[in-house]
Amino acid sequence: MAESMRGLHRSHRCAEVTKEMTGSEVTLMGWVQKSRNKGGIVFVDLRDRSGLIQLIFENGSIDESGFEKAGKLRSEFVIAVVGTVEARSGAVNPNMLTGEIEIRVRELRILSEAETPPFPIEENSKTKDEVRLKYRYLDLRRPDLQRNLMLRSQVATLTRQFFAQEGFLEIETPMLTKSTPEGARDYLVPSRVHQGSFYALPQSPQIFKQLLMCSGYDRYIQIARCFRDEDLRADRQPEFTQIDMELSFVDVDDVLDVNERFLAFLFKEVLGVEVSLPIQRITWQEAMDRFGSDKPDMRFGMELQDVSEVVKDCEFAVFKGALENGGSVRGINAKGQGKMPRKKIDKLVEFAKGYGAKGLAYLAVNEDGTYKSSFAKFMTEEEMGGLVKAMKGEPGDLLLFAADKNKLVYDVLGALRLELGRQMELMDKNEFRFVWVTEFPLLEWSEEEERYTAMHHPFTMLMDEDLPLLDTEPGKVRAKAYDIVLNGNEIGGGSVRIFQNDVQERMFEVLGFTKEAAYEQFGFLLNAFKYGVPPHAGLAYGLDRLVMLMAGADSIREVIAFPKVKDASCLMSEAPSAVSEAQLEELALKIAKEDISEN
Amino acid sequence: MAESMRGLHRSHRCAEVTKEMTGSEVTLMGWVQKSRNKGGIVFVDLRDRSGLIQLIFENGSIDESGFEKAGKLRSEFVIAVVGTVEARSGAVNPNMLTGEIEIRVRELRILSEAETPPFPIEENSKTKDEVRLKYRYLDLRRPDLQRNLMLRSQVATLTRQFFAQEGFLEIETPMLTKSTPEGARDYLVPSRVHQGSFYALPQSPQIFKQLLMCSGYDRYIQIARCFRDEDLRADRQPEFTQIDMELSFVDVDDVLDVNERFLAFLFKEVLGVEVSLPIQRITWQEAMDRFGSDKPDMRFGMELQDVSEVVKDCEFAVFKGALENGGSVRGINAKGQGKMPRKKIDKLVEFAKGYGAKGLAYLAVNEDGTYKSSFAKFMTEEEMGGLVKAMKGEPGDLLLFAADKNKLVYDVLGALRLELGRQMELMDKNEFRFVWVTEFPLLEWSEEEERYTAMHHPFTMLMDEDLPLLDTEPGKVRAKAYDIVLNGNEIGGGSVRIFQNDVQERMFEVLGFTKEAAYEQFGFLLNAFKYGVPPHAGLAYGLDRLVMLMAGADSIREVIAFPKVKDASCLMSEAPSAVSEAQLEELALKIAKEDISEN
Repeated sequence: MAESMRGLHRSHRCAEVTKEMTGSEVTLMGWVQKSRNKGGIVFVDLRDRSGLIQLIFENGSIDESGFEKAGKLRSEFVIAVVGTVEARSGAVNPNMLTGEIEIRVRELRILSEAETPPFPIEENSKTKDEVRLKYRYLDLRRPDLQRNLMLRSQVATLTRQFFAQEGFLEIETPMLTKSTPEGARDYLVPSRVHQGSFYALPQSPQIFKQLLMCSGYDRYIQIARCFRDEDLRADRQPEFTQIDMELSFVDVDDVLDVNERFLAFLFKEVLGVEVSLPIQRITWQEAMDRFGSDKPDMRFGMELQDVSEVVKDCEFAVFKGALENGGSVRGINAKGQGKMPRKKIDKLVEFAKGYGAKGLAYLAVNEDGTYKSSFAKFMTEEEMGGLVKAMKGEPGDLLLFAADKNKLVYDVLGALRLELGRQMELMDKNEFRFVWVTEFPLLEWSEEEERYTAMHHPFTMLMDEDLPLLDTEPGKVRAKAYDIVLNGNEIGGGSVRIFQNDVQERMFEVLGFTKEAAYEQFGFLLNAFKYGVPPHAGLAYGLDRLVMLMAGADSIREVIAFPKVKDASCLMSEAPSAVSEAQLEELALKIAKEDISEN
Repeated sequence: MAESMRGLHRSHRCAEVTKEMTGSEVTLMGWVQKSRNKGGIVFVDLRDRSGLIQLIFENGSIDESGFEKAGKLRSEFVIAVVGTVEARSGAVNPNMLTGEIEIRVRELRILSEAETPPFPIEENSKTKDEVRLKYRYLDLRRPDLQRNLMLRSQVATLTRQFFAQEGFLEIETPMLTKSTPEGARDYLVPSRVHQGSFYALPQSPQIFKQLLMCSGYDRYIQIARCFRDEDLRADRQPEFTQIDMELSFVDVDDVLDVNERFLAFLFKEVLGVEVSLPIQRITWQEAMDRFGSDKPDMRFGMELQDVSEVVKDCEFAVFKGALENGGSVRGINAKGQGKMPRKKIDKLVEFAKGYGAKGLAYLAVNEDGTYKSSFAKFMTEEEMGGLVKAMKGEPGDLLLFAADKNKLVYDVLGALRLELGRQMELMDKNEFRFVWVTEFPLLEWSEEEERYTAMHHPFTMLMDEDLPLLDTEPGKVRAKAYDIVLNGNEIGGGSVRIFQNDVQERMFEVLGFTKEAAYEQFGFLLNAFKYGVPPHAGLAYGLDRLVMLMAGADSIREVIAFPKVKDASCLMSEAPSAVSEAQLEELALKIAKEDISEN
């Protein structure tokens, strides 16, 4: 039986009650965390989003019937209490914010009873993900999830505050937009009025924010929901949130400048972390050469070394072959790992093969200066010495080499570096190391489609000095594109946009669009460009991932209130679901059942 | 040919340059509003979102080639200039923020040329809506639209600031949700992974925000996009934006209190308007009785009077018949309109018929105290006198009466009151009059479906004292529901929610849901209610309409960046559009072409 809270007004949240309030009366409301009877006194831990506080019910302080009710309290009951703040009669609990006080209750109302939940409401629950997600409304009561969502809320608030102060306008762009073939797969929305036609949910507000620049809004920000119908990985969701911005009359440096001030502000306010500015900037080429990755984790060294020059005349076929095929030989030095057992090295070789390597050459520098190596027999002592020197190898070091086409060598050693970094515990969880990666390639060759595709998107401006290369060596053209990387995670990225119609049309050509196709898809943008466009640039952060990193969570699911699972369904609401025939008829849609059986 | 802005940094926006800066150098960038050559000097009005400033180009101040370039400038060219702030050489322009100064330009770059736009970029353009919306990116350059969108941005920012300070958390709820049959028509999103199943875009975050209360988040806010696939009226869009909130451990007064403080804050900050608190509160019944509307415009009186008692014995069949059918006779007094010509009165009668009235009885009180009336012959002089007295009729007044079932009488006189208010110019455009309308009926009888439907939604709590009526006279049950009304527009509404599972189940029963159907649709909410629910309540504002009223705009289209037209299409992007066969195949969908031809 639910009692009414009529006449009562909550005076504080639980953990807002302090020692200084001793003697005063408070009215608290919340959930029973636990309840126990000890020596004729009922002790209850009351919980709300602020934390816990201890209540005591003693016959005499509360009337007979109230005391009896207190005895019936069980976990997750929702109650309202009126009582007096007192110093703890029992032992102080140093792990509790309110551990020095308790509330002597004089009035109790049970607002809502509760069945026993399917799992305990507590931090770091070991409950299976499927159960947690089915009962997400209970899972969301756990203090760690509550902290994450409160942090997310704080990040959103501070983000808006910062950019508003910087003159950005928050402008909402449409969710029901036009499907475009470029990019990932769209979620479609059938139209009832225009049967047979579809809207698409936006993969990003890209075109709209560029139009807003054409319209003179100057600085735009939106925390925007975006959609991609792709197969999900651990850190992907069908809908995700971007901090999305665009600026007019700016070049690369202006975007980087306002954004690193934003990051410094955000990390200082939320985590108390000082980000020293300016944030380091390295080019994409440098990132690949030094870290084998376009999102390098800068918390540790173990950088890649190109030893092609050193081994170019050796007899080791693996090295020689790679170089003859236009590839390279590069290595990393795992300092102090020279005594790594063979078995563990074999595992690293397997790991490397997982990234496409044919193998991994290694060389351990023994304490006495001799070498143990998988390829010693193919090399002269001088060559070995040269190699160790190039790698700055010292007694006790383990040198690992990959030889192949550049892209593969980067991938393998980049991944290996991270793996060794983990094994050697080189990443400090409490360190936040940012780096800007700039000058990305404009285009990637797609083997599948046998054409160049845009690495960032088709509106990305190229570096001024690379313009002539667009006709001769498109693969070498660098873009005015940049990513912001935190501890090896890309948390955001953007670019300066093409704002000249002729360059934009040329770009579509390189991407294999006919002029007609380009106009059919992006006609309104290309048309807009005819009427006076300011130079503009933008950037977008993945909010889910940013918050995940700030919260120290393992998955973006831990920072999203109602996430979906790998098959893009919601275990709680059971969406997606069947709909009525009438609904389909209104949309003039039929479900091709034969396709279902084929799947 | 587009010049680069390399080496230049904008120092100010146009209208940020002040007289106090005379003599200093500035770098400005923006659009050419207009350009003219007068006596060998080129004058240009430069525009950005802040406003306009006058540039002058004089040979000698700028070099020969720059002066030549200046001669080529045309409207909507995007330029960058470097120059010196000077007092105006010509006449001061008092209509321009920067009317006392001008910029003597020493360097000019043309960043982007422009074709002649299809309509001039100026305030209050007379251009047809279709053209404006097709070229929305140009329409959005108009100063009035820019002001509207900047105001909207400011409203969003202040809203978030206010509620963050009040302890509300911003939490994002899903866009890909489950379709529910209750309420308006859903937009559906076919699932690729679960072929034949569909997500629905949310009509509101209602269930999710209630779950968040179950989960202990205490206070939630979101500026949320919502979707309804209904036929559009002038002030409706397929996607719209709500300021959506929910609070735990509160009753009606708490919600009203925080929200009227919010409104006072918002109107003060944005418009400089003082809203005196508390805002007036009237019940739904009072609103209907006094104003014939549940969203009364309180800026003027002309209240309805129930004269049923006065005329109950008269011989006028229209009045008698209405009373015998359980209806009422009510009137309004159009002060000073007693000399309204018969033709104009006839138009009012037609107007009333448009709202379903069979007719409209009138009585003009002549200056000499005699009456001119459509029904004088059916009434005694005493009855006429009583009627005039009841209506507080004075010489020169026009009394108008409707007699029918109550609902119809309310509708007719409510509409007539507004119409007369407009004709008599009783609404002050600069006045903002708020009123809370409370205690709405819980249920409405749907003739079409032959069942009760929820007036607000099925989770609305009834007034405690009306609980017994739910079994005996459901139509008389009042809800803990409230609307906030501004100048006759409902700008927001909400309710206290049912938080007891048994009451919720009973409610679904009254609405004609079987228990199975209720659980199939809302099972996760009903299940959540088993594990301890706090009393909770919420409210949502229609942001589009609120901003429209604050901006003094005529349509919500004027406060939405990229709106859709009546057939739910976007004239600019041409969404919705056909999609490829491959896309449909992946979704296992077929378009039922025969249905198209039928439409």
